[in-house]
Order: sequence, then structure tokens, then C-alpha cells
Amino acid sequence: MNLPECTNLELRLDAGVLYVTFNRPESRNAMSSGTVDELLATFEAIADDRSVRAVVLRGKDGNFCAGGDIKEMARIRASIGTVEGDPVAAYNRKFGTMLERVNAAPQATVAILEGAVLGGGFGLACVTDVAIARRDASFGLPETGIGVFPAQIAPFVVQRIGLSHARRLGVCGARFDGAEALRLGLVHLVAEAEEDLDELLRTTLSQIRRCAPHANAVTKELMLASLHTELGTLLDDAARRFSEASRGPEAAEGAMAFLEKRKPNWA
Amino acid sequence: MNLPECTNLELRLDAGVLYVTFNRPESRNAMSSGTVDELLATFEAIADDRSVRAVVLRGKDGNFCAGGDIKEMARIRASIGTVEGDPVAAYNRKFGTMLERVNAAPQATVAILEGAVLGGGFGLACVTDVAIARRDASFGLPETGIGVFPAQIAPFVVQRIGLSHARRLGVCGARFDGAEALRLGLVHLVAEAEEDLDELLRTTLSQIRRCAPHANAVTKELMLASLHTELGTLLDDAARRFSEASRGPEAAEGAMAFLEKRKPNWA
Amino acid sequence: MNLPECTNLELRLDAGVLYVTFNRPESRNAMSSGTVDELLATFEAIADDRSVRAVVLRGKDGNFCAGGDIKEMARIRASIGTVEGDPVAAYNRKFGTMLERVNAAPQATVAILEGAVLGGGFGLACVTDVAIARRDASFGLPETGIGVFPAQIAPFVVQRIGLSHARRLGVCGARFDGAEALRLGLVHLVAEAEEDLDELLRTTLSQIRRCAPHANAVTKELMLASLHTELGTLLDDAARRFSEASRGPEAAEGAMAFLEKRKPNWA
Repeated sequence: MNLPECTNLELRLDAGVLYVTFNRPESRNAMSSGTVDELLATFEAIADDRSVRAVVLRGKDGNFCAGGDIKEMARIRASIGTVEGDPVAAYNRKFGTMLERVNAAPQATVAILEGAVLGGGFGLACVTDVAIARRDASFGLPETGIGVFPAQIAPFVVQRIGLSHARRLGVCGARFDGAEALRLGLVHLVAEAEEDLDELLRTTLSQIRRCAPHANAVTKELMLASLHTELGTLLDDAARRFSEASRGPEAAEGAMAFLEKRKPNWA
Repeated sequence: MNLPECTNLELRLDAGVLYVTFNRPESRNAMSSGTVDELLATFEAIADDRSVRAVVLRGKDGNFCAGGDIKEMARIRASIGTVEGDPVAAYNRKFGTMLERVNAAPQATVAILEGAVLGGGFGLACVTDVAIARRDASFGLPETGIGVFPAQIAPFVVQRIGLSHARRLGVCGARFDGAEALRLGLVHLVAEAEEDLDELLRTTLSQIRRCAPHANAVTKELMLASLHTELGTLLDDAARRFSEASRGPEAAEGAMAFLEKRKPNWA
Repeated sequence: MNLPECTNLELRLDAGVLYVTFNRPESRNAMSSGTVDELLATFEAIADDRSVRAVVLRGKDGNFCAGGDIKEMARIRASIGTVEGDPVAAYNRKFGTMLERVNAAPQATVAILEGAVLGGGFGLACVTDVAIARRDASFGLPETGIGVFPAQIAPFVVQRIGLSHARRLGVCGARFDGAEALRLGLVHLVAEAEEDLDELLRTTLSQIRRCAPHANAVTKELMLASLHTELGTLLDDAARRFSEASRGPEAAEGAMAFLEKRKPNWA
């Protein structure tokens, strides 16, 4: 597996965990087109590698991601008519493609949410498996306040917290902290301070490591599929895959470890 | 825009907010056929008017709405055979049409929930964007206790609070207060007393006013569409509409206000 | 109505409530193939009997159900090649069929969750109408820790607690107590101790008895259908059924009891 060369992101692989750090602190890690491309390339590179057990997404210098890159967006809007097609729609849709890709990553994904978690950063938080927030983090969907809307983000907000909370946040131009994000079900764990955040991440990664990598990927795939697949069809498919997996190497190792009262080799 | 003549409702338009007050306090604002017709006509009248930014639904004299009008229902049942078709089914379905209409209103909708929030009133609360309840409000689905069921309401309860809570409320004949409604995600804010309720409404309306009207309508539309539209199709459509909106008047005003460090003209 | 002969379950019918007790305490009520068959036969036997108002599921001697029967599963896996088809897939799918059947039971279903609520027991808890847990109950999805996955269970976990919580539990190999189960919306009521559990069950059963049996069955059916039926179609069907029911015996008795200020005959 070859990780891509990145400038908007810093990548570090350590003990089966890929740490992806947004590296544009001067703009509070605003989500540029380059950031989106590099995220897509990174998740593409690890897609078939089950030795990467988890991906941790975090922003450099205390902000997760402050949303879209307004200057870049202005440049792209100015290019309409000078390039083929609709560059604004393409730019917007590519961000949605990235959210779809992260949402469906076979690895466990963890977001560390500090400082600004706005717009695109808010959307990205909504598609991770485990979201850990600082209590004083600042969540928001500022788009409608400047006359546009969270186009690619809105569906993932509904998927994350349900229609009732999503519609209220939508019409009121959401602004809230980590404690409220926990109450809404947007995040799963809240940390008071830096050390606390590291501790929660350590615990989460150790829980993920106890689960077999292929089994975890299938569990996640079945859960996501359940949102749009007819139940009977899904259960038929799940039974077939359960039977396959029960004859596979992870089940064999799991059974052996259980009998020998030791940890399986993936833990 | 011409508001309809109403007798079951009182309508008052003030600073871009339409206050709709149920005006049958003698029956605790039971939802008559006339109420449903007038609600349909009211939402129809404002459908294309983005100067109406929010609709506030409230009941006169301390009750939101105590459910269906039992005497009227008895009269309609008695008319079976003397009129064309199935008048009971038509009466029931019209109530559902009204819920669908309010659910999808392009304006932000706010419910002020006091006293009785029963049956049809409960259903109506489930389709608003922001629901603010008195802690001592009385929520309930009394239908099954008298041998019928919350036919048009049940799907909106599931949409609002999810299947787990909905099915429990369903089989147990729900009865609970505003604090529990908050815990279930049915309402978003709880007020201890009258002044508190007014304060929460003021804050909510000022949040809504900060959001651009067209942008808010599209956000809400995308969120509702996400419940039944294939994700890729929805994201394609959202990107196209984002591009259109980015060249529209709200985005221009929003960008200008941002640069000039002033509020946009809609705020 | 004839209840089936059972050895894995104990069945007791008392005052319209069918008490189903898992009766394999020596294996902490692990879900054997026989248990699944008997649950299917039991729910089949009562399917058309509206005199059975509620089904209470509980495990003998302090554990609800510790998951699958590992020894039995090993035997079935060993039979591959010696029998027709894929016996592991068939075994797994039959468990899912049972979850579908319990999920859609016309009666109100209540789970009493104590001790181990693991794997298949966890899945079964997810398809009941009212789930009452001891605070010290032990919930978990241990499958991925031994190299397999909660194949038939995963979709029902998403249906129960939403994708956000489900995916976190999935990738982290969920382990939590009754208090957390309440916070996640997996259970509805939490009991500190034995007496408390009995009291909550009594209250729940008395709430269920106040609701008309046929009306309750239809309410539940409409709620479940709302997850996969187009809204307009569902509301049309609900209106037609409401009209039918309004001319039926339960509505007549309900109206009469209301006028005579007495309890209806089903209460």
C-alpha cells in the first residue's frame, strides 16, 4: 500500500492506525479542493488494506475544520463560462463524493473534534464511526447565514441525528458546543480537556483493535446497507456472508484464541 | 399574497412572521374539518412568498390542540351511505394531507406546545421545524383507548422520534409531559413558565431571521428529500442547485455583507 | 389457540399475557436452534389471537440470553458437505426470520433484560416494543471479537438506535450497561433492582391493557410499514383502515364506554 503525497494533509501510519491531520492551520483547516482530492486519494490507497485498522481525522493547531475555502470558491465561481460544464456544481459534488467515500470506508474512522467544526468540517464529522469532541468545540452550519446552503452536507446530518434535530438546526442556522453535540447524537464522547481527549482516543483504538478487521468491515457495510436495502434481501446476503466468514481465517483464529484463552492475533 | 378568511384560526402577520392561532378554546382547540381546511388554505396562500420567514402555530387560552373533533366525527360517520364514496376515509386522509403540507412548508415552522397536545395536535407537533413545549404540557395519543388508532399520525411519529420510541408509545397509549417530550426528541426546547416560552420563541425567531429565506427553504427541502431519495441522485441535484444559488441574489448579498462586515438585508 | 410443546422455552398464559421464559439457564440461555424454532412456533400460534394482549420475554435465573450456542454452531459448521445446501447460512438466516417475526408480532412485546444481553439476545431486545433493563445488565455484541459478525442483528440495531450509535457500537465491539442502553434508546425503562423491574412491568402491562387489541395491532403495523412504504400510499391505506375500524366493534365499545364514563371491555 502506497500512501499519496500530500500537502493539505499530514499522514502518519503507526501500529495499524492512519493519523490524517488537516494541515492548513492558517485558514483554520478550511476544506480546499486540494484537501478533498487528498482525502479521496488517501481513502482509495487504503481501501483494500485490512492492516490499516482505523483512520483518525484531526485538524492541526486546535481547529478541526472551519468549513469551505471561501477565496477558492470565489475563484471557481469566477471561472464559470471560461471552462467546460459547471465548475461550481462539480466542486460541490466532489466534496459529497468524499463524504460518501469516508462514510463507507472499510476501516473504523475516528474524528477528534476541537475548535471550529463548521460547514464541511461538520459534514465530515457526521460520516465517521466514532466522534470525540472537546466540550468547548464550536459546531455550526453557517452557510444559510451567507446566502447559500449545506447542499452536500444536509443528507448526512439527517442520517446522523435524525430529521427532528436536523430540521431545527437547518432552519435556525445551527451553533452549539460539544456537550450539545453529544446530546444530539452527533458525537459519541466528550472530553473536558486535551489529556482527556487523548485518553478517550486511546480507549477507542484499543476497543477497535479487539475486533477482527474483516468482520468489522462487513458489520459496517451491513449497517450502512440497511438504510437502503430491502430487509429480507439484506438478511439473505448477511447469512451467506456469515457462512463464508465462519469458514475463513478470522473465525478460525478467533475460535482457537477462545479455546486457548489468549488474545487473537489481531488484538 | 392574500391570507384566507378564517374562523377556526386567527392569523396575524408581523415582521415576516405569520402567527396562526387555533381559535376554538371552548373545545380545547379540537381539530375540526374547518381547522384543517383553513390550515391548508393558509399554507397554500404563503407557499410562494419568501417574505414570510416563519409560521408560529399556537392554541388559544393555554391548550395547543386536544385532538380530533369527536362530535363532528360522529356526524360524518352517520353520513355513510347518504353521500358519495367513503366520507370517513376522506375526512381522515385530509388531515394527513395537511400534515404533509405543513411538514414540507418552505417557511420555518414553530409550534408552541401548552396544555393538551393530543392526537391530531400531537401529529401536528411532529411536523414542525422547532417545537417548544411547556414542561407541564400534556402529550398523548388517546386513540387506541377508544378503539380507533392514530392512522394519519403514526408515520409522522416514527419520522419524528424513531421506531424504538414510537412503537413503545404506540402500544402503551402514550401519555407524557414536556420534559419527556424533550428526552424523546419530539420537542427541541422546554419552558418552565409563560415568560420563558416567549423568550425561547424570540430567540428562535431571531435565529431563523439570520438565515437567508430561499437558502433555508432549500435546506429543509433537501433534508426531507433525503428520507426517500437515493443518495447519489440527491447529491447531484444538491450540487446543481448549489451552483445556481451561488450565482443568485442571496449569495451576492451574503458575500457583500460579509465583506462590509454588516448584517445581510434579510437579517 | 394451541401453544406448542416447548423444552427450550417455558410458556405461561395469564390474564391475556403470554410469559415466554428462556429455559436453558445452564448456558445462560444461549439461543439454540431449538429456541429459535420454538419462538417461531409460539408467535405463529398466537398470530391471529387478539385475546393475547402482550408477550413478555425473559430469561430464567437472571440472564436474558448470552448469544448464540457456540457448540451447536461448531457441529453445524462440521456438517458442511454432508448435508444439502449451506447449513450455516440456513441456521443464521432462520434466526433473522425469527427477529422479523417478533418485530412484526401483532401483540405488544415486552423484554425484561437482566444479566447477559449478548449477540442474539441483544438482537431480540432490539425488536420488542417495550424493553425494560436492569441497570447492571450487560449488553454486548461480542461477534467481531471472535472473528465473525452480527450478521442478522446489525440491521435491527440500526433500526433501533439509528446509524450513528450503531456504527460506533459496531466498530468498537459494544459493551455497556442498562443505563447506557437507556441513553442510546435501545431500552425504554431502567430498573435498579428486582422489585423495581416487576413494578415497571406491571405498569407497562396495565398501559397496554387500556389500548384496544385490534387498534394496537394496526398502530404497530402502520409504524413498521412507514419504514419502507411511500408516505402517500401509506396514508391512503391508513385512512381506508381507519374508516373500517370506525365502524367496527372496538370503536363502538370505545364510544359507548366513553359516554357511559366506564372502562371499555378490553381494559
